[in-house]
Amino acid sequence: MIRVAVLGAGRIGQIHAANVAAHPLARLIAVADPIAAAADRLSAQLNCEASTDAEATIARPDVDAVVIGTPSDTHAHLMLCAARAGKAVLCEKPVDNDLAKADAAVAELKALDAKVMMAFNRRFDPSNIALRQAIDAGDIGTVRQVIISSRDPGLPPRDYVAHSGGIFRDMAIHDFDMARFLLGEEPVEVYAKASRVVDPALMEEFDDHDTLMVIMQTASGKQCHINCCREASYGYDQRFEILGSKGMLMNDNLRPSTVRRFTAAETEAREPLLNFFLQRYTDAYRNELDAFLKALKSGSPLPTTPWDGRQALRLAEAAIESVRTGRAVAV
Amino acid sequence: MIRVAVLGAGRIGQIHAANVAAHPLARLIAVADPIAAAADRLSAQLNCEASTDAEATIARPDVDAVVIGTPSDTHAHLMLCAARAGKAVLCEKPVDNDLAKADAAVAELKALDAKVMMAFNRRFDPSNIALRQAIDAGDIGTVRQVIISSRDPGLPPRDYVAHSGGIFRDMAIHDFDMARFLLGEEPVEVYAKASRVVDPALMEEFDDHDTLMVIMQTASGKQCHINCCREASYGYDQRFEILGSKGMLMNDNLRPSTVRRFTAAETEAREPLLNFFLQRYTDAYRNELDAFLKALKSGSPLPTTPWDGRQALRLAEAAIESVRTGRAVAV
Amino acid sequence: MIRVAVLGAGRIGQIHAANVAAHPLARLIAVADPIAAAADRLSAQLNCEASTDAEATIARPDVDAVVIGTPSDTHAHLMLCAARAGKAVLCEKPVDNDLAKADAAVAELKALDAKVMMAFNRRFDPSNIALRQAIDAGDIGTVRQVIISSRDPGLPPRDYVAHSGGIFRDMAIHDFDMARFLLGEEPVEVYAKASRVVDPALMEEFDDHDTLMVIMQTASGKQCHINCCREASYGYDQRFEILGSKGMLMNDNLRPSTVRRFTAAETEAREPLLNFFLQRYTDAYRNELDAFLKALKSGSPLPTTPWDGRQALRLAEAAIESVRTGRAVAV
Amino acid sequence: MIRVAVLGAGRIGQIHAANVAAHPLARLIAVADPIAAAADRLSAQLNCEASTDAEATIARPDVDAVVIGTPSDTHAHLMLCAARAGKAVLCEKPVDNDLAKADAAVAELKALDAKVMMAFNRRFDPSNIALRQAIDAGDIGTVRQVIISSRDPGLPPRDYVAHSGGIFRDMAIHDFDMARFLLGEEPVEVYAKASRVVDPALMEEFDDHDTLMVIMQTASGKQCHINCCREASYGYDQRFEILGSKGMLMNDNLRPSTVRRFTAAETEAREPLLNFFLQRYTDAYRNELDAFLKALKSGSPLPTTPWDGRQALRLAEAAIESVRTGRAVAV
Repeated sequence: MIRVAVLGAGRIGQIHAANVAAHPLARLIAVADPIAAAADRLSAQLNCEASTDAEATIARPDVDAVVIGTPSDTHAHLMLCAARAGKAVLCEKPVDNDLAKADAAVAELKALDAKVMMAFNRRFDPSNIALRQAIDAGDIGTVRQVIISSRDPGLPPRDYVAHSGGIFRDMAIHDFDMARFLLGEEPVEVYAKASRVVDPALMEEFDDHDTLMVIMQTASGKQCHINCCREASYGYDQRFEILGSKGMLMNDNLRPSTVRRFTAAETEAREPLLNFFLQRYTDAYRNELDAFLKALKSGSPLPTTPWDGRQALRLAEAAIESVRTGRAVAV
Repeated sequence: MIRVAVLGAGRIGQIHAANVAAHPLARLIAVADPIAAAADRLSAQLNCEASTDAEATIARPDVDAVVIGTPSDTHAHLMLCAARAGKAVLCEKPVDNDLAKADAAVAELKALDAKVMMAFNRRFDPSNIALRQAIDAGDIGTVRQVIISSRDPGLPPRDYVAHSGGIFRDMAIHDFDMARFLLGEEPVEVYAKASRVVDPALMEEFDDHDTLMVIMQTASGKQCHINCCREASYGYDQRFEILGSKGMLMNDNLRPSTVRRFTAAETEAREPLLNFFLQRYTDAYRNELDAFLKALKSGSPLPTTPWDGRQALRLAEAAIESVRTGRAVAV
Repeated sequence: MIRVAVLGAGRIGQIHAANVAAHPLARLIAVADPIAAAADRLSAQLNCEASTDAEATIARPDVDAVVIGTPSDTHAHLMLCAARAGKAVLCEKPVDNDLAKADAAVAELKALDAKVMMAFNRRFDPSNIALRQAIDAGDIGTVRQVIISSRDPGLPPRDYVAHSGGIFRDMAIHDFDMARFLLGEEPVEVYAKASRVVDPALMEEFDDHDTLMVIMQTASGKQCHINCCREASYGYDQRFEILGSKGMLMNDNLRPSTVRRFTAAETEAREPLLNFFLQRYTDAYRNELDAFLKALKSGSPLPTTPWDGRQALRLAEAAIESVRTGRAVAV
Repeated sequence: MIRVAVLGAGRIGQIHAANVAAHPLARLIAVADPIAAAADRLSAQLNCEASTDAEATIARPDVDAVVIGTPSDTHAHLMLCAARAGKAVLCEKPVDNDLAKADAAVAELKALDAKVMMAFNRRFDPSNIALRQAIDAGDIGTVRQVIISSRDPGLPPRDYVAHSGGIFRDMAIHDFDMARFLLGEEPVEVYAKASRVVDPALMEEFDDHDTLMVIMQTASGKQCHINCCREASYGYDQRFEILGSKGMLMNDNLRPSTVRRFTAAETEAREPLLNFFLQRYTDAYRNELDAFLKALKSGSPLPTTPWDGRQALRLAEAAIESVRTGRAVAV
């Protein structure tokens, strides 16, 4: 039994804590959150201890592993705390929103030979796993182009925009990671173009964008396109398309049911998509934790690493630079 | 060059005449219709001769083949006229709405060794051809069940209902033919249940039904279900499903375009179906004529025969008897 | 907190017990199974008590409700035991495989004003709920025809066939219930035709069939077709289609992922369907228990009743009689 | 009746000539091709005159309009010949593969107030017409992003590659035109990245590419992505996706039939796509000619102009420059 503490009792911490509590390989020992009421509520619900002190929780001798779902700027520090204490870590992205700090953390984690997995949930979606397996099985030959469409159901609140780090670091970072996951090679060049068409005033206020397109290419000539928009009226849209020398693969979105409606006005009409990531990636969060715990148990390598977190951030930074300069940026 | 006359200048005659005129193997010699204005209009449009006399048109020495698109009760007579004169025939269903008359006509046509093809247009739809080819290729193993859904976009006018011969002979007869086409065996038993739910008053007035379900079985145990309704708000619905020992095949309906719409209210929404048979089976009518002309040219057997017309009628008659008696009827 | 015991530790009992253990409104007190090892294994896994005595388990003062997942011939007896003891019941279908016994049980349960829900899991599938809600919302006007396709992935083992009660009572009974659920009216006439095309020798040995078709009609003229086959190479196929005066509704099957593959040989190819009911109806079993517990908590009527179980059995019996007589049977 | 001559009796000339011959508003007077045998064969088939002299054919007093389907480097010259003679023109893309020459031709055609339509066939595809109409109807609000996927079924022959003008001018030019058509605004900036992954040796030999990605943006911030590949194993892939403020629209590809196959290995499998543009755009070529003839008859403006041809070429040139410089290019 792996004894786990969850740091952060917000939206994502709640997901992880419930998954830990339900997993046969784990026992949920404690949840920690600086907001005592949040920690208490979650601990009461899941029958574990509560704390307002993340570091003390990491230090508990009855904790083998921690799941970090705290604000972005605490990730690097808490990962290092845990790693130094010999605890395994599953940490939400990013390593840090500052590339230099992220690099320092990655270096130290590597030196410590720490067991740290980055929580890139999309890699653990059943359909995305199936995409990767089909590529690995040679179903479509050599990958040539990857097209990623990624749209949120609606603009985040003003306050979130203010502290998000911008659309590239906050939203597209998941797509940069999926690009690496699906390309199977590192991009060596990034071009990005960003726009303000959903809420131009808000975006200008925070020097952010709500809509973007990216092109990346690898050394062997594989290409990847990403398009993101902060608003899609029809729901949370998450699609991947991989063109290979022998075929193509696509995934589709999820909906609450499979019902199709035929009327005088339309045919084959389905419901809007599942609204946002907590619903869309329910299975992915569960699979992600499962992969973490099974790798710890078996001693096999963790499926994602801080380096993956660093690389996704590096691509985001390059995209930001490309938007500023109008040039492709080498990475 | 096969010289063709078209008998009947109504809705279906116009389709056939235009297809003859456009076919590289045929020349359209004349169109005949008792309504002179109709014959004149069509002949002017297609640059051929017009007549009000079907028999005289059949008798023309410059006519090798006739396409019969006249009212149902003239089919047997005109087919025999043409066959006795040694002309090839493509005739709309039915042979006759009276089974005894149909049997007599089939017998004489057989005795004459006449070249007569029944115009069961659905057999020549590209998707239905593909279904039959896939079955023949063994893609789904041995056929076990066939499910046919067949719905008109709306009730025909009162006048049409009055002279249609009833839903089984007028509408379901196409489905009985498709059942034989897809089963690849003769049904030996028919059960049918009919209902009045679209326009009960109109249906009672003419002792007709607007909605029906049929079950048939072959000697080897293959089963077929047919469901028909005179009204489908979303368009002309024509679907076939074939379950075999190794798989299943389905076709889909056609729409004006392939556009899908995603909004806050719905996703994947497509247009209503093509409204009715003239649009839905445009390619089928063309393929049907093509098959007729190519078989004539090559001397190979015609793909459908008066016997097919007789068998579809026989199944319709059995279904009507089943509705009356509440029993399965052996055929 | 509703204190629950689960009777039966087999395939279906395990599902129910796990769902009870995970439900926030329930506590799993005990599992009972005459095979001690099965009860022990399940109780150890879910951290509750084990027993080999179903009646004693029902009688426990700390048990408020029981879930019955025992063999069919024990259902009526155990339901009555529980009802007489004032316990609420969620019972797998059928009430009994003998209609007279089922009627007697239903009558006594009614006299006791017992809180008994029949576990017709398909009614609680998210898509089937959505179908019913769309009908209730008037999306397709008045229902005219219901078409139910229901295919198992493969023949059950010889031993199961020997004791199943036959394809109508064992397999189609779920479809008879769904017919009532979707028609919203009682069928008054049943015609059925059964066939042996999957394994004729096995079916003859047990005087059973592996393939069937049914037509039913309600007093108002609504029609329902059911087709069943014990084998579908492509997976567990469960489809519903409802034609109404203003439109049509369809559901679709579920697959492990949403991936589509395009190659030189095919396009849009998806995986085989989820293999069988435990995977296909995972959410349905969870929703079913949830509906049971919430109704108990709120005191509102249970969504299904023993009468529903009796009616599904009655339709199955009528179908069997119809197969024997070749006639439609009034119910 | 509009009297038409078709210049060029190759692949595309044959399509146009047959469509002219079948159109009720037109009469096919002559076909011209420097290869006498090609002109003769086509004229014999369609029952019109043949010539090896395009200019003499244009000059015929019984010719009102010409359709130009000759090699690219003759387009500008023949358009001008026809325009100076007061003949209407439907001309295949490009105006010229040299932007300066194209600009000169466009200017002279404008000065002549010539009736010249550029044959951008994709704009006349039924689904693409429906996309444009849905945008115009406000179905998806304001357009934000357009994604164009455009893949040929296979590499053209070596000889074609040698004289094609390169993938941007030869293949992507259609996509640049569709981008303008769907955006409803002119792109002001183009970034492109090209790759050699299908046949690197062949592509290097001709300093060409077989795979590309483009990002364009308009002044108001609308974005467009194009991806092209010279080879798609599953057929000729032509997809458009338009994200707007209120929804999204997509088209789908066409296949020979609508059959779906379900087996133990796969479900919903459809046939490969229609192989190439002559099959895929059969209806589009017919609609294009129809639009040309109807506009001539009614005197209304032609739906596309030489300026459209010039603009698509300008975007292709900008993309080529972008590939060379690694920068976005203003247009």
